[in-house]
Amino acid sequence: MSNKYVYMFSEGNGKMRELLGGKGANLAEMTLLGLPVPQGFIVTTEACTLYNTSGRVMSDDVVKQIDESMANLEKLTGKRFGDTENPLLVSVRSGSRASMPGMMDTVLNLGLNDISVEAMAKNIDRRFAYDSYRRFIMMFADVVMDGNKHEFEAALGKFKAKVGAKEDVDLTGEQMQEIANIFKEIYKEQLKGDFPQDPKKQLYEAVCAVFRSWDNERAFIYRRRHDIPYSWGTAVNVQSMVFGNMGDDSGTGVAFSRDPSSGVDGVYGEFLMNAQGEDVVAGIRTPLSIDQMKVDNPAIYTEFEALAKKLENHYKDMQDMEFTIEKGKLYFLQTRAGKRTGAAALRIAIDMAKEGLLTQEEALLQVDAKLLDQLLHPVFDEKALKSTNTIGSGLAASPGAACGRVYFTSSDAMAAAERGEKVILVRNETSPEDIGGMQVAQGILTSTGGATCHAAIVARDMGTPCICGCSELHIDYNTKSFDLGGKTYNEGDIISLDGTTGLIYGEAIATVEPAMTGDFATFLDWADKHKTLAVRTNTDTPDSAARAVEFGAEGIGLIRSEHMFFDAERIPKMQKMILSESEKERRAACEELLSFQKADYLAIFEVMKGLPVTIRLLDPPLHEFLPKSEMEFETLAKETGKAMDYLKRQSANLAEVNPMMGHRGLRLVVSYPEIAEMQARAIITAAIEAGKAGINANPEIMIPLSVDEKEFKFVKDIIETTAKEVIAEAGVDVGYTIGTMIEIPRACLMADEIAKEAAFFSFGTNDLTQMAYGMSRDDAGRILSDYIDNNIFEVDPFSRLDQKGVGELMKIAVERGRKARPGIKLGICGEHGGDPSSIEFCHKIGLDYVSCSPYRVPIARLAAAQAAIMHAKGLGVENKG
Amino acid sequence: MSNKYVYMFSEGNGKMRELLGGKGANLAEMTLLGLPVPQGFIVTTEACTLYNTSGRVMSDDVVKQIDESMANLEKLTGKRFGDTENPLLVSVRSGSRASMPGMMDTVLNLGLNDISVEAMAKNIDRRFAYDSYRRFIMMFADVVMDGNKHEFEAALGKFKAKVGAKEDVDLTGEQMQEIANIFKEIYKEQLKGDFPQDPKKQLYEAVCAVFRSWDNERAFIYRRRHDIPYSWGTAVNVQSMVFGNMGDDSGTGVAFSRDPSSGVDGVYGEFLMNAQGEDVVAGIRTPLSIDQMKVDNPAIYTEFEALAKKLENHYKDMQDMEFTIEKGKLYFLQTRAGKRTGAAALRIAIDMAKEGLLTQEEALLQVDAKLLDQLLHPVFDEKALKSTNTIGSGLAASPGAACGRVYFTSSDAMAAAERGEKVILVRNETSPEDIGGMQVAQGILTSTGGATCHAAIVARDMGTPCICGCSELHIDYNTKSFDLGGKTYNEGDIISLDGTTGLIYGEAIATVEPAMTGDFATFLDWADKHKTLAVRTNTDTPDSAARAVEFGAEGIGLIRSEHMFFDAERIPKMQKMILSESEKERRAACEELLSFQKADYLAIFEVMKGLPVTIRLLDPPLHEFLPKSEMEFETLAKETGKAMDYLKRQSANLAEVNPMMGHRGLRLVVSYPEIAEMQARAIITAAIEAGKAGINANPEIMIPLSVDEKEFKFVKDIIETTAKEVIAEAGVDVGYTIGTMIEIPRACLMADEIAKEAAFFSFGTNDLTQMAYGMSRDDAGRILSDYIDNNIFEVDPFSRLDQKGVGELMKIAVERGRKARPGIKLGICGEHGGDPSSIEFCHKIGLDYVSCSPYRVPIARLAAAQAAIMHAKGLGVENKG
Repeated sequence: MSNKYVYMFSEGNGKMRELLGGKGANLAEMTLLGLPVPQGFIVTTEACTLYNTSGRVMSDDVVKQIDESMANLEKLTGKRFGDTENPLLVSVRSGSRASMPGMMDTVLNLGLNDISVEAMAKNIDRRFAYDSYRRFIMMFADVVMDGNKHEFEAALGKFKAKVGAKEDVDLTGEQMQEIANIFKEIYKEQLKGDFPQDPKKQLYEAVCAVFRSWDNERAFIYRRRHDIPYSWGTAVNVQSMVFGNMGDDSGTGVAFSRDPSSGVDGVYGEFLMNAQGEDVVAGIRTPLSIDQMKVDNPAIYTEFEALAKKLENHYKDMQDMEFTIEKGKLYFLQTRAGKRTGAAALRIAIDMAKEGLLTQEEALLQVDAKLLDQLLHPVFDEKALKSTNTIGSGLAASPGAACGRVYFTSSDAMAAAERGEKVILVRNETSPEDIGGMQVAQGILTSTGGATCHAAIVARDMGTPCICGCSELHIDYNTKSFDLGGKTYNEGDIISLDGTTGLIYGEAIATVEPAMTGDFATFLDWADKHKTLAVRTNTDTPDSAARAVEFGAEGIGLIRSEHMFFDAERIPKMQKMILSESEKERRAACEELLSFQKADYLAIFEVMKGLPVTIRLLDPPLHEFLPKSEMEFETLAKETGKAMDYLKRQSANLAEVNPMMGHRGLRLVVSYPEIAEMQARAIITAAIEAGKAGINANPEIMIPLSVDEKEFKFVKDIIETTAKEVIAEAGVDVGYTIGTMIEIPRACLMADEIAKEAAFFSFGTNDLTQMAYGMSRDDAGRILSDYIDNNIFEVDPFSRLDQKGVGELMKIAVERGRKARPGIKLGICGEHGGDPSSIEFCHKIGLDYVSCSPYRVPIARLAAAQAAIMHAKGLGVENKG
Repeated sequence: MSNKYVYMFSEGNGKMRELLGGKGANLAEMTLLGLPVPQGFIVTTEACTLYNTSGRVMSDDVVKQIDESMANLEKLTGKRFGDTENPLLVSVRSGSRASMPGMMDTVLNLGLNDISVEAMAKNIDRRFAYDSYRRFIMMFADVVMDGNKHEFEAALGKFKAKVGAKEDVDLTGEQMQEIANIFKEIYKEQLKGDFPQDPKKQLYEAVCAVFRSWDNERAFIYRRRHDIPYSWGTAVNVQSMVFGNMGDDSGTGVAFSRDPSSGVDGVYGEFLMNAQGEDVVAGIRTPLSIDQMKVDNPAIYTEFEALAKKLENHYKDMQDMEFTIEKGKLYFLQTRAGKRTGAAALRIAIDMAKEGLLTQEEALLQVDAKLLDQLLHPVFDEKALKSTNTIGSGLAASPGAACGRVYFTSSDAMAAAERGEKVILVRNETSPEDIGGMQVAQGILTSTGGATCHAAIVARDMGTPCICGCSELHIDYNTKSFDLGGKTYNEGDIISLDGTTGLIYGEAIATVEPAMTGDFATFLDWADKHKTLAVRTNTDTPDSAARAVEFGAEGIGLIRSEHMFFDAERIPKMQKMILSESEKERRAACEELLSFQKADYLAIFEVMKGLPVTIRLLDPPLHEFLPKSEMEFETLAKETGKAMDYLKRQSANLAEVNPMMGHRGLRLVVSYPEIAEMQARAIITAAIEAGKAGINANPEIMIPLSVDEKEFKFVKDIIETTAKEVIAEAGVDVGYTIGTMIEIPRACLMADEIAKEAAFFSFGTNDLTQMAYGMSRDDAGRILSDYIDNNIFEVDPFSRLDQKGVGELMKIAVERGRKARPGIKLGICGEHGGDPSSIEFCHKIGLDYVSCSPYRVPIARLAAAQAAIMHAKGLGVENKG
């Protein structure tokens, strides 16, 4: 590792993001390009890591290099740091590899002290000098020393009232000087020490404060949400000051090279004359549209426009720039790729490809696949959102905006929906019995669970906004109310959820429906041309299958057949089957379920029109289906003609200590072969009936939870025997294949044996992650949150595939499976199948397809194309911030 | 695979056990050695597998080869199968690779029909001929055709009553002929067909019946208990008959070449003149000691003794032989390695080594390590014994002391054991159907049978004390009571058995731990010289640690520190800690636990005197410790001063859906670092205090449940920081190391990363098996039983390490761990650490030690020696039957 910890702007370049941070690398690159950039230097991310991992002490090495660089900067600018005549002032800003709000704010005018401020007052302007000084003292106290800003602000207000000044501009230079003195007093009292007069000390403190801010809570929260590793660290940019507040020929602003909302080409932004950057950002004064500059100052505007285009052409991406005009001279303070909406991202990528600025491949790589999600869900009206405070937050589990009245049980939610109300279902957690309430809900909020809990999976499948794991949420089911954000909300109260951000609001907020633009179709057509992975969907109903096909799904990768048994009509029959006393009884109960299953599969075959349809046999522990309430037991007693006592005892017998590792999946079939017989009969019969209607059904029968070739073969034999019988009875042939989920670690190690029998593998990475980590999804919320807070895990392994552990098991399975059966079809149907970085991994290890919830299909198509393009170029896809 | 399915005895040899079964291979070997063996042929185990896997039809190939071999046998014997003048009769017996009771019984006299029986009557003796015929009809009906034996027996009884015969011997030839006719009628009625007159048909049916018996329930139970794979199959031995019931110069018997109870050298056995083998085995007549033969028939005795020694010297092992004398000529019907008690096994191995028959290595390999278990069983307290009168006595058939409640049927015994009772099974005789009751019994008592009856053989094998042939014992199965020593004992009454002396007591008697015999020490000293694996123990108390050291433990491989918190005094303090509302409260509660922990560790360090002591930090989910009953909540409310409501709510909050994969192990420490701080403080303080007492404590602090190097480091840092503090406070240094359990699949894959931080790995194969299989031990009972019944799993992976899956994960961890840290110490502390085949695997992959429960330490020492010897010879250890 390099021992060079500090780089002058002229020593770096745009490719050095890891070391210099995004901001620093871009300042270096702009310097290389000859843009007017106030010069400075960058303290590297390595210096940050060194600081935070060695007891928060800045090493002598770093101090020495900062001093040397400062000397260089003095030569470049012709000014001296702390000079009594012509002092060099600098800004200090954080800058990590990825743009990251939540980090330390900018400190401006660093270098001012009692002496240099006086020089500045004499040479430039007293009011300007002391205004800068008092701002610097407050900023330093607040941002660097962790003091209390409000005392400073209150003192300023009091002073203004005393002298009868309405606005800051009404204050004279002398008054500013008085304020600076007052601020120094406040500083001393708050921070138990004099405001530091040594500019070097100011600088070291500021640099360390930036380093420490990498470790603060806001930074943690942001990193967690955006999957940014702690290990990256932040760089610090030290840049000589230019002043936008030196009079009416000075100003400052921020602008994009294209409209970040719509993607329309042309400079788009805001500016303020006679102001510092913080005035724009803080919203103290209302900035003007940059179009106004065209009128007021056409020369500067033209220069800016030309340089903005130069930067955009250079970076081949839409730029977000900060600039300052000092006494009529334009300076670029920062440039970076601009954040944009999903719609703008598509428009810009397509336009740039049409302009010849990007190849089609480059255009595809330019769009963050996750952004597509925005185009598929309603969002809150931006204006309405600005004036609303959040009452809490949780895990953004299923995207989109929702607004409705709070209900706490599935039945209350359904009754309310029946009355025409919009409903938000609020629960500690959801279970399959809540499916009815979830179906009618606009949004779902839970206090427990992570990205792959029941609520999250089902909500994503339905396209319903969902926030999970809101641990501050305290529900009292008895009083039908919850406490959040210091307030109690009762049944029927209105709240709003943003499933994209995880934010919760205590009132109604207007939503807007997204329009699918032509750009969407165009762009995904491009993606399809480049991707090699097929994209399938996980779904259990014909409706959502149809939606997935619209979104471009090339088949179904997972039907969870058990989901078909939860509605009110069916569940007693399922319960009857489970609680049968003999095989004969169970067979009779299966017979009743058969017609439902057959109709389900037929409807899906009709929608899928010959595309492959992977049907997983019954998977969850049977007791999940059992009656819980007295009423349910009564219903069941009627249905079965059995005593309540017996039913309760049997139900209790089926309870398990660790149901996730219990009697489920193909283990059920080993105990009750008649279940698989029934399901196989339903599938094959439905395929035959579809065939009669002219549809060439393509069922892939998937056996869950295999760990051994013998158990797989046991179940496969049952299916094949049944299929032969059904085909013989019908006198019509039908094609089908039999494969297995690979979701248990042992299955990966035994993949060569299992592949001898299985036509396909589908990685169930939810369960595989659970077992590989020994961590139950249902119970992981608290654990993962403590792990991420303590920097132990960078990301939630249920959201992003753990490539080192789980991924290694997958690689072993792929190698062994392909070795034993070269043509074996390999896919993934865990939730990771919709996560871009996980898709990239699936491409890399050579899977044939990924499968994800319908609303993730477009994202997966783009991610698959990006993976293919990157790999064709011989590159891995870097984590995106 | 060979297409030769049938071998003449003279075509095989003793090494062909896999193909010919143990019995067949030994018959072939005896033939080679020139022993007097009635000739015959063997249908191979491959033919069995073929039959059971191809719809239970005997292939034409097999039929043809049987016919050819029968023709050969006819030539050898000069008799013809089904001949009207000089018929060849054969016995048909099962014979798998390992000796296996529960398989099909012997069928004798096969080949008899209405015509050949008449030839036999004329040529030899009418009574003998028809006695043989009626036995054969009944046996064929019972054993081959699955008919009902009791109808035959009842008919015989009725006939005897009618003609006024008291015993079978009172019946004339003509009467026997009448009985044969009655039996044919019963056969026809029961089995809806005539008794087959074609000897070939009789033979094919009998062979198939043996094949099918491999698939019966008793065989399943036996295989499961003895870890015998289903895939082995059984061979069938077809052997020409010799008759021990042809008069007073004929006889039959079974004998061992040394005493199977004590190991004393010299022929030991029983015989009956004028009897068939079944009379001895069934315990119908009480046989004579073989010493009697020395008196009655010294020539035969001398011949037998010489041949027995010849066999023993040839096989280099104690032999268990069946013989028949036909009209003064001795025949060997079978030989095999004799089953023996643990004490006998040691005596024999040591003697044979001293005699020069075996090398020390061979002697070590001769003893099944599991047998040592018997030597560790308790015996009756001598003082208690002195003041107790016996109520009867019988044959000391299997050593050890047992005390429990009397039950008379296998099912009653099992039900009582289920309720937690200690059970003595009392029967006239046992049969394979009683195996379930025998397994749960503390001891077994029978009224009939000798040292080689079913009860004796099975009990010795299980290590269960057993007294046989207590002829004064009168059982009334109807009233569920027995009379003995002039008193009636009813179901549920307590008795005691001494299987070493054969004495029976009518009350409970205290037991004491057995004294280790000289042989035991000698043999394990030999073992220690050869083993390379160290053997440690899993224990949580000073007492059991001391016992383990007596048994030869070289350290502690696992202290489960949570076990120290379950007693009445401590658990409220643990609960207080768990339910703390703040870190401060939790620290205070930890403080209270600290002194307990410190004292625990100090006591153990004192016992272990410098041997390594591995202490695992708190592992289970916290809610396991929570109060369950109202009373416990009340106690806790007093202890903590908190409201019941609060305590209940908090307890409920801590509940988990899958606790095994929940908030446990080092995950607790990430959430509550103060727990690890407390434990580290307790350990280091105890080590320092031990040091002051002159004991050089050697703690190895083990972090449970790691999956990642960062979380390991997180906890390690806490321990190290605390240890430094404690050491600094004390001013005394103390050595310790920090390592981790490897018990989660991901830990195996990340072993290289983890090894950078961890000084040692200890494989927790219980959890590793759970996670690798995705199967919860708590819930696995039903699943495993269905899996074993359906031949999917051969053995329970929680009893014997699954080398293909779990073992492969271990291998990966060993390779990666050693690569990253060449000197890393590797051990195992799961239950598998005491299982010989798993120990062999641990040796193979290069672990440094195994750790097991104290009573398994001697077994592990021997198994480790056996593994080392086998591997030095370049051999794997074969599964033992």
